[in-house]
Amino acid sequence: MTRIAFDQMMDTVKKAFVLAGLPEAKADVCAQVHTESSRDGIYSHGLNRVERFIDYISKGWVDVNAEPTLVNNFGSFEIYNGNLGPGILNARFAMNRATEIAENNGLGMVSLNNTTHWMRGGSYGWQAADKGYIAICWTNTESCMPAWGAKTIGIGNNPFVMAVPRKNGHLVLDMAMSQYSYGKLQVTRLKNEKLPFPGGFDKDGNLTDIPGPIEETMRILPTGYWKGSGFAILLDVISTLLSNGLATCSIDKAGKGSCGSCNQVFIAIDPLKINSQEFIDNVLESTVQQLKSSVPATENGKIYYPGEQSLLTRKTNLELGISVDDGVWERVKQLAGH
Amino acid sequence: MTRIAFDQMMDTVKKAFVLAGLPEAKADVCAQVHTESSRDGIYSHGLNRVERFIDYISKGWVDVNAEPTLVNNFGSFEIYNGNLGPGILNARFAMNRATEIAENNGLGMVSLNNTTHWMRGGSYGWQAADKGYIAICWTNTESCMPAWGAKTIGIGNNPFVMAVPRKNGHLVLDMAMSQYSYGKLQVTRLKNEKLPFPGGFDKDGNLTDIPGPIEETMRILPTGYWKGSGFAILLDVISTLLSNGLATCSIDKAGKGSCGSCNQVFIAIDPLKINSQEFIDNVLESTVQQLKSSVPATENGKIYYPGEQSLLTRKTNLELGISVDDGVWERVKQLAGH
Repeated sequence: MTRIAFDQMMDTVKKAFVLAGLPEAKADVCAQVHTESSRDGIYSHGLNRVERFIDYISKGWVDVNAEPTLVNNFGSFEIYNGNLGPGILNARFAMNRATEIAENNGLGMVSLNNTTHWMRGGSYGWQAADKGYIAICWTNTESCMPAWGAKTIGIGNNPFVMAVPRKNGHLVLDMAMSQYSYGKLQVTRLKNEKLPFPGGFDKDGNLTDIPGPIEETMRILPTGYWKGSGFAILLDVISTLLSNGLATCSIDKAGKGSCGSCNQVFIAIDPLKINSQEFIDNVLESTVQQLKSSVPATENGKIYYPGEQSLLTRKTNLELGISVDDGVWERVKQLAGH
Repeated sequence: MTRIAFDQMMDTVKKAFVLAGLPEAKADVCAQVHTESSRDGIYSHGLNRVERFIDYISKGWVDVNAEPTLVNNFGSFEIYNGNLGPGILNARFAMNRATEIAENNGLGMVSLNNTTHWMRGGSYGWQAADKGYIAICWTNTESCMPAWGAKTIGIGNNPFVMAVPRKNGHLVLDMAMSQYSYGKLQVTRLKNEKLPFPGGFDKDGNLTDIPGPIEETMRILPTGYWKGSGFAILLDVISTLLSNGLATCSIDKAGKGSCGSCNQVFIAIDPLKINSQEFIDNVLESTVQQLKSSVPATENGKIYYPGEQSLLTRKTNLELGISVDDGVWERVKQLAGH
């Protein structure tokens, strides 16, 4: 395993994006977000996604020059058309806009239709929290999972994000509606390992923790069985009706994955409009304290608050360099003209 | 099993609430909501909770005369103090107020601090959907579940609700952050049955589908393992900071369960401000159609949209009478002075 310094990775990714046709300022932001995802240990949506994003551009699925345009305005709630621009830029714009609205009104909501894959959903939670805002956001996706009770895919894994700013490390939840991603199945299979818990059904309809048979059936397990299935359906329908966008069943028809015009919702709230800083600090520290004072389930086990492990990985990766898969790194360097 | 007509059950519950001290108009609404929960098959939070609610009143934990009062107003976002009034009445008020705000602004958000147990969370999703609004709401609770990685309880099961109005049956998700409720564990144990899937850990730390050993350890499983644990923590912290209320770790100190001053968030959106009725119908029907056209996992299996099974139970219970546990029904009749 090789480790690459943050700046070196970001420069290389930026060069690759510029060569792929992104204007320099846009390439800069996209490279930063991809590199930050790898820095935080979300390798699947960081460096590992660079090649695929460039492939989307070359297919014409992502318009590198498009900017979001305002469609409708209801005071604290604005709707934008993403015009199939880069998903990262559209999502960052929308979350930032939600915080701007919240700056005046306490609450801001922005929905975005006709956008493309936003990569790591957590990025936008961290973005808002870094600016001092509570955030809730989610995206719909193409179908990649069977609904509960079905054996053929029909719903998205629709990642859902919640974030709360905290001085000693934000609380950030970034969860897809499938128990494991296809990326996790692949990585586990390549290591010849089992999943920590059953992750889907094999061809005989039995729950299994062996990744290969699940990848074959595409019967990945919704988070919490019927619960994650229902949650995925509601997230899809609500973001679609909040953005006047395309639902999963319509995205599927385009055959372009999440680049076939997905939609997203971004909610931001200013906690300081409602509470004193002292009250906020007290709620967060006493909650973290309650978690940390629980008795661990295993000897020497640790209990983490949501987001803590990303922050620990970030510290290590900034100190030692970001872990990369050598093959992936070589291909990105080639795409950057090295 | 006995079946009781809706009106008979509601009249009896209302009499019990009036005898417990609730003013008649309030008793009427509370009786309706409890009876509707049983009607929809959510027996645990319907008739079965009447005795416990009356116990809360007799202990002085619920103020039968309290009304919510406005604490703060940010345009589309209002904060109320529930003044420890009946949780059902406070929650109905707050969700209705969110829809009133949304009527003008497209979006309305109301948070509620210092309230008591709202019984069935789904009630407020159905309430908003019946009025034509999309709804998102949740509550925090006292600790009843270990955080992921812990073996002692430290987080709530914090039910989360999403609802979308639909002509042929609303889409409603009503999910707690534990895979199973303690009520489900108890019912399953009394029947000498196993849970459909593992529901928690036994005293040796092994996942089990036998309810008794889980009730003993209180190590109920979060929905989706670490995911439901993280989601529960974020729901608690966000509703607390949106309402300036008490977090789970503070509710715990009162030792009154959710009646120890919990807090809630209610979001309502008017889909007709954003979309035509034709567009809405098309999104919902094509989504339901995609679910229904999936291949069932088992022979003759059915795939339900979220909320469909509640609606089917409702139809049966309205036709044949609502199923009751005979012992529970006798005790409620006694509380009603029969």
